[in-house]
Amino acid sequence: MEAIPYYALLSAVAGLVIAVFYYLDVKKASPGNERMVFLMTEIQNGAKAFLKQEYTWVTAFVVVLAVLIGVFIQPFAALSYVLGAVLSGLAGYVGMTVATMANARTTEAAKEGPAKALPIAFRGGAVMGFSVAGLALAGLMGVYIVFVNVLEIDDAFEVITSFGLGASSIALFSRVGGGIFTKAADVGADLVGKVEAGIPEDDPRNPATIADNVGDNVGDVAGMGADLFESYAGSIIAPVALTAFSLSILPEQATENGFLPLLVFPMGVAFIGMIASIIGSFFVRGGSSTDSKALSRALHMGTNVAMAITIVGTIGLALWLFEDSAIFDNQLGLAASVIGGLLVGYLLGKTAEYYTSDHFGPVKAIARDTETGPATTVLKGISVGMISVGASVILLLIGIGVAFWGGSVAINEAGLTELSASIDPDRIEAFGGIYGIAVAAIGMLATTGVVVSVDAYGPIADNAGGIAEMAELDPKVREVTDALDSLGNTTAAVAKGFAVGSAALTALALFKSFEFAILEASGGEQALSLDIGRVPVFVGLFLGAMLPFLFASLTIDAVGRAASKMIVEVRRQFAEIPGLREGKPGVNPDSAKCVAISTNASLKEMIIPGGIAIVVPLVIGFISVDALGGFLAGALVTGFALAIFMANAGGAWDNAKKYIETGAHGGKGSDSHKAAVVGDTVGDPFKDTSGPAMNILIKVMTIVSLVFASAFVAF
Amino acid sequence: MEAIPYYALLSAVAGLVIAVFYYLDVKKASPGNERMVFLMTEIQNGAKAFLKQEYTWVTAFVVVLAVLIGVFIQPFAALSYVLGAVLSGLAGYVGMTVATMANARTTEAAKEGPAKALPIAFRGGAVMGFSVAGLALAGLMGVYIVFVNVLEIDDAFEVITSFGLGASSIALFSRVGGGIFTKAADVGADLVGKVEAGIPEDDPRNPATIADNVGDNVGDVAGMGADLFESYAGSIIAPVALTAFSLSILPEQATENGFLPLLVFPMGVAFIGMIASIIGSFFVRGGSSTDSKALSRALHMGTNVAMAITIVGTIGLALWLFEDSAIFDNQLGLAASVIGGLLVGYLLGKTAEYYTSDHFGPVKAIARDTETGPATTVLKGISVGMISVGASVILLLIGIGVAFWGGSVAINEAGLTELSASIDPDRIEAFGGIYGIAVAAIGMLATTGVVVSVDAYGPIADNAGGIAEMAELDPKVREVTDALDSLGNTTAAVAKGFAVGSAALTALALFKSFEFAILEASGGEQALSLDIGRVPVFVGLFLGAMLPFLFASLTIDAVGRAASKMIVEVRRQFAEIPGLREGKPGVNPDSAKCVAISTNASLKEMIIPGGIAIVVPLVIGFISVDALGGFLAGALVTGFALAIFMANAGGAWDNAKKYIETGAHGGKGSDSHKAAVVGDTVGDPFKDTSGPAMNILIKVMTIVSLVFASAFVAF
Repeated sequence: MEAIPYYALLSAVAGLVIAVFYYLDVKKASPGNERMVFLMTEIQNGAKAFLKQEYTWVTAFVVVLAVLIGVFIQPFAALSYVLGAVLSGLAGYVGMTVATMANARTTEAAKEGPAKALPIAFRGGAVMGFSVAGLALAGLMGVYIVFVNVLEIDDAFEVITSFGLGASSIALFSRVGGGIFTKAADVGADLVGKVEAGIPEDDPRNPATIADNVGDNVGDVAGMGADLFESYAGSIIAPVALTAFSLSILPEQATENGFLPLLVFPMGVAFIGMIASIIGSFFVRGGSSTDSKALSRALHMGTNVAMAITIVGTIGLALWLFEDSAIFDNQLGLAASVIGGLLVGYLLGKTAEYYTSDHFGPVKAIARDTETGPATTVLKGISVGMISVGASVILLLIGIGVAFWGGSVAINEAGLTELSASIDPDRIEAFGGIYGIAVAAIGMLATTGVVVSVDAYGPIADNAGGIAEMAELDPKVREVTDALDSLGNTTAAVAKGFAVGSAALTALALFKSFEFAILEASGGEQALSLDIGRVPVFVGLFLGAMLPFLFASLTIDAVGRAASKMIVEVRRQFAEIPGLREGKPGVNPDSAKCVAISTNASLKEMIIPGGIAIVVPLVIGFISVDALGGFLAGALVTGFALAIFMANAGGAWDNAKKYIETGAHGGKGSDSHKAAVVGDTVGDPFKDTSGPAMNILIKVMTIVSLVFASAFVAF
Repeated sequence: MEAIPYYALLSAVAGLVIAVFYYLDVKKASPGNERMVFLMTEIQNGAKAFLKQEYTWVTAFVVVLAVLIGVFIQPFAALSYVLGAVLSGLAGYVGMTVATMANARTTEAAKEGPAKALPIAFRGGAVMGFSVAGLALAGLMGVYIVFVNVLEIDDAFEVITSFGLGASSIALFSRVGGGIFTKAADVGADLVGKVEAGIPEDDPRNPATIADNVGDNVGDVAGMGADLFESYAGSIIAPVALTAFSLSILPEQATENGFLPLLVFPMGVAFIGMIASIIGSFFVRGGSSTDSKALSRALHMGTNVAMAITIVGTIGLALWLFEDSAIFDNQLGLAASVIGGLLVGYLLGKTAEYYTSDHFGPVKAIARDTETGPATTVLKGISVGMISVGASVILLLIGIGVAFWGGSVAINEAGLTELSASIDPDRIEAFGGIYGIAVAAIGMLATTGVVVSVDAYGPIADNAGGIAEMAELDPKVREVTDALDSLGNTTAAVAKGFAVGSAALTALALFKSFEFAILEASGGEQALSLDIGRVPVFVGLFLGAMLPFLFASLTIDAVGRAASKMIVEVRRQFAEIPGLREGKPGVNPDSAKCVAISTNASLKEMIIPGGIAIVVPLVIGFISVDALGGFLAGALVTGFALAIFMANAGGAWDNAKKYIETGAHGGKGSDSHKAAVVGDTVGDPFKDTSGPAMNILIKVMTIVSLVFASAFVAF
């Protein structure tokens, strides 16, 4: 049982080995002709240049926060914080580099059909998937083993939490910066290229096309990877921190029989999930057909196998771990929490799919409303997004209910009270239920390796199509890449459900940990008094509910400003480069300029919204920890609602447009289509910038509060 | 001091007398030529028909709820509930009838210039203003005197609260139903008339023009009146209920020296405000110039005079009332709360003006973004609306802080504890501050009489312009009515700020009252446990944050569905009535049909969103009162944010369009203008349906919880 962290560490290393294996596999495939290699290299260079600059900016931020942590909290915590940030950055860099290698190779393989192309795109994504999962788990387990098991320092659990804050910092900036980049390039490319110049998407004449493709990588690959890195790490940290802070455990007690199962259970689930992901990834093989059902089955197979193994493994783990009958009543209760979390995450993804796929009513209704123009299109999308909040919140609450119930029946609070005789028995009340909620998030994220692989597959297939278009290959190649691409849009739904669902559960668990961390830091003297009827709490709640709106406004505006810079540049190139618009052979746009513009604009724009997320909770916390409690709760519930609204409204508009492009309501070029394009453009920053960043916002604010809890008390 | 409720009652009667006086004044003016009388009658009949049908539907609802209240709570409470509903309905009916008399008379007077026309429009609105304030205050004081002073029944304070619930029920349905009607007609008239048929606004050929004018009356006059009726009543009820429930006062104690000043202070402020409003209303006189500044000064004079008198009077009242030095420390503290509330309400209005007037940056930025099409226009509006939430919440919190501080320094909690020896001293903790918050809302609403007059003036002037256009009068007349109308748009900002600010403060005070009502109903045994960290509270908070999104979605969709029915009908008439589109003399559209369609559609559509607001809190309350507490808090903070977002985004789009129509960015007919029209149409249900209804939603849910508190406990 004590060996579980070590096993988890080993499984993480195995994940990294698999990443290397897939990397070599991708590398040996041919990247195609000279033109394709040129395009691939341009995209790769653009993406790398962005990441390098982003990391430069973020490094400054990380250093400042590390110093603060080192001074106010703990030097080792600062170290752990930096490690979390560096590993997250490394995963993003490696994964994105390989993703930008895989795109042209997928295009080349697509010449021989989907059976060849699908595995390359998937394995390109899998390098990201296993880098993220492997580095996150290896780093976290390393920190745990060193500080809890070996050094046994008093603040070991603060040190672990700081690892999560490091990951969160990178995730926040990557999501915001990458999200702004990708949408600025996309909107810029579309508005001038498609609308003004009347040239198709991904046309090589459009100076912003390369930037658009770079955007897919920095936003949907690197940003998403950093997001899942922090979600994954956070979901393991939350139950560990909750256990340690609620029950006031010192590292030397961590191996005591009563506490040990609680501390290592999340790691055990992560271990199982990692092995399951590795096995699952081998099940993804391309068939010979471009039939979307067959392709979809091939891609889903990996996730499904991994989830099935995880479920079975978790049941076994629970039966083995929770034997001590003085502390554990129902051995399977916590397995139920984990599986419940997994199912709810899956259903959240399905709900998102219902509201955003053109197979169902909502998107069809938006498409219908395009017939009365852009205004009704926008209104219908807003109403679809808003009503999807209802279904998602209810699902989430069912998940919370199941997880709470599972934890309650599993853990015998009386037994736990006896064990933790030194602390106030009140602190143990409902511990089981909250612990159940905390582990439910791991249910969704244990299979991060394979889930991220599938998710990163999408932009690779998308890029592959772009390269086919820009390299002017046979339209048949484009057909294959299009089939692979459209698949990516639906499979991403699962990852989205997991990301948003786990964000809420993890934040909730971290929130409870924060309460106990304050109590601990004050030596049991200062308990948070979070009665909603108290004025500081209510004021905090109001501020918390307001913040997500502010954050959304800032990020939407940021996209707008960055996009308009791009538009000016694209217009300039069309005006000043003779022969460009006409497609004269040998005349190339200055793509690098567009990439540079998007890079600079998005990095500049990410500072304020990103900074707010860190600074505001600190300011409130130093004034009143009760207000901070209200603030975190308000931001969590409103941020969750707004995140779901924005993501689903954006997705629904996107697919309504695509649905019309298949010929419905007049098809491409009709007035309906024009209205749908308006909806889609409104939705772009919703679904790819503000919405996904909101999930991280919620957690980063909670975890920064948790890390600084002792500083708030001391102040 | 005991006489204050009687004085307030008398002042209310005086307000009603003034309403009659203004009614006679309006009536004696000439309504103009036959065509104008015909148009006026059509609008009047349409509006009355709507209200009658609306009241029929609402009566069914009121009866059901009255029976529930009678059975579960108290027969007298049911009676008071019905009285609140009936008086609110009566105020709406009377006010709207006179408003629809005043429109043609304003047009006729406009022939002689603004000096004649302004007072008629204002006095037409003043009938609504003083009917609302007079009937609300008279009814409420009547109930107070009968049940607290005369009958002294035990549940007297529940009976008073039920009056507020009656007003809230009507307000909710009027805002939602009226809001759907007005926007369905507006959108329908614009989309087919202006966009498809290419005929100007208010053109007599458009079959939906009359419906559009009816909509102004049922939405902006009757709906707004009912809204302010309940806000006004609620702002007086909240501090009374708070005092009674926190301090566990029986009616026979109400005249005891300690409690009396607390109970009658809000009524005293209302008395002063009523007198001040009457005086203020005499200061509104038209000048001879159509210069907008002069007109604006004339109109604002009424409000400014009334507010100045209220401020001075409140200071005097406080000095006189709060003499007992055992209970009151700083005599002026509560005056500071009231005045602070008034100022914050004013500043909230100014903030709304900043974000929605074309004199400032935000609207200009939206106008600029119309140049890149409707998508960027919509995005910019959304971001403007969202960022306005930040400024508004911070202002509101400053107001809460000032009000809390005022109450804290005013009330000596130790003295109060001695007085209320029978109750747990914990209950008195922070009572002063919360009481301060409760009375701050009255600061904004004491001058309801004149504020509503100015607000109702807007749609009358708007209608007057419509009649001038439809009756094909000299364009000079239209110029005068346009000058009067454009004024209405800016003066309404103050009422909006008051409505939203007071909604938050009142809901907060009622929320606290709810906590104590639960304690009281259980005989002190069941205290709410509203710690955010508890799972039922958190679940409630999540549900509460979700509900405003659901409500917004339903109301937006309702407008869309109702508008599309209208569009179909208008298209049908243009197609089937020969000569209509061409404007052949003697060919008239079937306006009544359009009115009937809008009426039926909007009433059908109001049931579900309206019903949800009543049913959801009841369901949650019977399951868990702690969850209900969380729910109300979540709905309050998120609903407030969403209300501000929607109202300001909608207002900003509207004025960006109007700004472009003055010639900016290409002016009318340009692509920029088309993009601005899209923004405006998206904003229509935001600012006139979902946004304003949200304010009532927040309160109606709180007050229904408060009324049913004893039933929840007994269950």
